Amino acid sequence: MPNFADRLIDAIEVKQSRLAVGLDPRIAMIPDELRRAALDRWPDRARAGAEMLLAFNRAIIDIAAPLVPAVKVQVAFYELFGPAGYEAFEATCLTAREAGLVVIADVKRSDIGSTAAAYADAHLGRAEVEGEIAHAGEADAVTIVPFFGSEGVRPFLDVAAEAGRGIFVMVRSSNPSAYEIQGRAEDADPLYLRAADLVNEWGASSIGERGYSAVGAVVGATFAEDIPALRQRMPRTLLLLPGFGAQGAEARDVAAAFDENGHGGLVPASRSIIHAHEDPANPRWKDAIETAIHDLNEKLDAALPPLGQGD
Amino acid sequence: MPNFADRLIDAIEVKQSRLAVGLDPRIAMIPDELRRAALDRWPDRARAGAEMLLAFNRAIIDIAAPLVPAVKVQVAFYELFGPAGYEAFEATCLTAREAGLVVIADVKRSDIGSTAAAYADAHLGRAEVEGEIAHAGEADAVTIVPFFGSEGVRPFLDVAAEAGRGIFVMVRSSNPSAYEIQGRAEDADPLYLRAADLVNEWGASSIGERGYSAVGAVVGATFAEDIPALRQRMPRTLLLLPGFGAQGAEARDVAAAFDENGHGGLVPASRSIIHAHEDPANPRWKDAIETAIHDLNEKLDAALPPLGQGD
Repeated sequence: MPNFADRLIDAIEVKQSRLAVGLDPRIAMIPDELRRAALDRWPDRARAGAEMLLAFNRAIIDIAAPLVPAVKVQVAFYELFGPAGYEAFEATCLTAREAGLVVIADVKRSDIGSTAAAYADAHLGRAEVEGEIAHAGEADAVTIVPFFGSEGVRPFLDVAAEAGRGIFVMVRSSNPSAYEIQGRAEDADPLYLRAADLVNEWGASSIGERGYSAVGAVVGATFAEDIPALRQRMPRTLLLLPGFGAQGAEARDVAAAFDENGHGGLVPASRSIIHAHEDPANPRWKDAIETAIHDLNEKLDAALPPLGQGD
Repeated sequence: MPNFADRLIDAIEVKQSRLAVGLDPRIAMIPDELRRAALDRWPDRARAGAEMLLAFNRAIIDIAAPLVPAVKVQVAFYELFGPAGYEAFEATCLTAREAGLVVIADVKRSDIGSTAAAYADAHLGRAEVEGEIAHAGEADAVTIVPFFGSEGVRPFLDVAAEAGRGIFVMVRSSNPSAYEIQGRAEDADPLYLRAADLVNEWGASSIGERGYSAVGAVVGATFAEDIPALRQRMPRTLLLLPGFGAQGAEARDVAAAFDENGHGGLVPASRSIIHAHEDPANPRWKDAIETAIHDLNEKLDAALPPLGQGD
C-alpha cells in the first residue's frame, strides 16, 4: 500500500477539495424517513439506533464521495449503542472506503505497550486467531492522544507503517479550556509546542513522495494564531484542522497550515454538513447536505492557495 | 445509587483486599481447554476469539469474586475483535457486577463536549431511542485522559454524578517515557501536578460519606517518589495505582497513597494474575490464578496500614 500521506494528497487533488465530512450522527437529527424505516425493521432499540446512523451515513457518503477526499468518523456516537453501534461504525468505514474516500477514524485512543498495540491492531491492523485473520481494522488513519509519551505512540506507528496507514496525533485541541493541559502561547514551554516537536520526530521515518509524513497532527482551527508556529515546528506534517464551521473558525484561519501548492492540511466539518437540513422532518435533507458541502468547499478554495489538477 | 467512592470502600472492607484484578486477556494465554471449546463452537474467528476471552474472564471472576473488591477491564483487548469483542467486553462487565465486583472499565477515553458525553453515556449512562433505553453502560467507573482540559472532563462528571458512578482521571502514567508529556518532579510546573490540582477541583462536589470523592486519579506505582506530593494535592481522591507486579513496583511503593485506616487506593494487577499459569497447556491454571491473587493480597496487606472489618 502506498504511503498514507501520498494517498490522502492524491485524493485531495482528484476531488479538488480539502474538506473532510465528519460522520458524527446524532439520533435527534436523523431524517424522519430513515428513522421510521429502522424502527419498523428492528424491534431491538440498540440495533434500530445503530441502523439509523448507518443508513444516514450511507446517504451522506453517496452525496460526499464525488465532492471530498475523506470522511472523519467519530466513534463515540457509535460506541454509545454498544456492539450494534460498533457494527455500524465498521460498516460506515467500509462503505466510505468502498466509495473511494479516505477514512479517518476519530477514536482518540491512548495507552501504552501491548494495550496501545491492541488499539492499533483494532483500527489499522488485524487480530489473528489460530493463524487466521479474525478481524481487520477498516480505517485508513486514526486519531490518537499523546498523553503517555513515545511508549504510547510507537505501537500505533509500527502498525500504521506495516499496514500503509496513517495517524493524526492530538497536538492542540479546538476547545477554550485546552490551555489547562496543553498550555498557551505565552507559557515558557507550552505542552502543545513540545507535542509538535515529538510529532515531527515520530513522523520523520514515514515521509512520502509528496513530502508529507504518514504521521499527521490535529490542530484546532480555533487557535489560528498558533498555526504558524506549529507549522514551523512540523514542516512535513499533515494537519487535521477541526473547528471550522459550527465551532466558529473561518477558512482564512487555517490558511497558514497550507503550502504554496495548496497542500498540508485537511479541514473536517461535521455539524455544519450533517445537520444542514436543520430539521429531521425536512424532506429536502439530501439537497441541504450537498449544498453545505459545496459551500464549505468554496469557502476553503477562496481562502487557501489553489490546488494542482491531480492525475 | 450510593456514591461510587463509598461503594468501592465498602467493597474493600467486605473483601478485606485492596487489589483489583485486571481482565486484559490475550489469546495466546487462554487455557487450552477454553480455546478448543470456543473454536469447536464458533466457526467465525472473531466470535471464537471474543468467546475465548469471555470464557476465561468468567472463570477468573468466579475465582476472584470472594477475594477482591474490583476488576479493571481493559477495553483495547476486546475492541481488537470488533463488534464481537465489544459484546465480550460488556458481558464481562455484567458478569463481574453480578458477582458483586466493582467494575472499572479501563477505556482511557477523551474528547470534548457532546462527543465526551457520548463516551460517558456509552459506559456509565445510557442511550435512548424513541424515549426508550437502547443501551446502558455496564461499568461502575471509567478511566479517562484529561488532555482536553475541563471541557473534556465535565461531560463525564455529569453522567457519573447522575448515575452514581465514578471516574479515574489519568494523572501520572506508569511508563518511563511518561515524562515527555506529563513532566518530571524537577520541572518548574510539571503537568502531572497541575493535573492533580484539576482532579482535586473536579472531585470536590462528589465526596462521599467515607471522605473520598467519586472522581479518582490514576497514578503509576512505578513513580513511588511522586506519590506523597500527589496525595498531598489530592487528599480526597481515590488513587488507582497500576504498575504493581509485572511492571516492577512493589507493595511498599504504594503505601504513601493510603490513609491510617488503610483506605485511599486500589492496586490493579493483570499479567501477574491472569498469566500466572504461565502456559496455556497448564491444567492447573485455576489454582495458579487463585494462588497469585492470594499472594498479591498478602503482599499488599503486609505493606499497607490494616483495614477495618467492614459491615
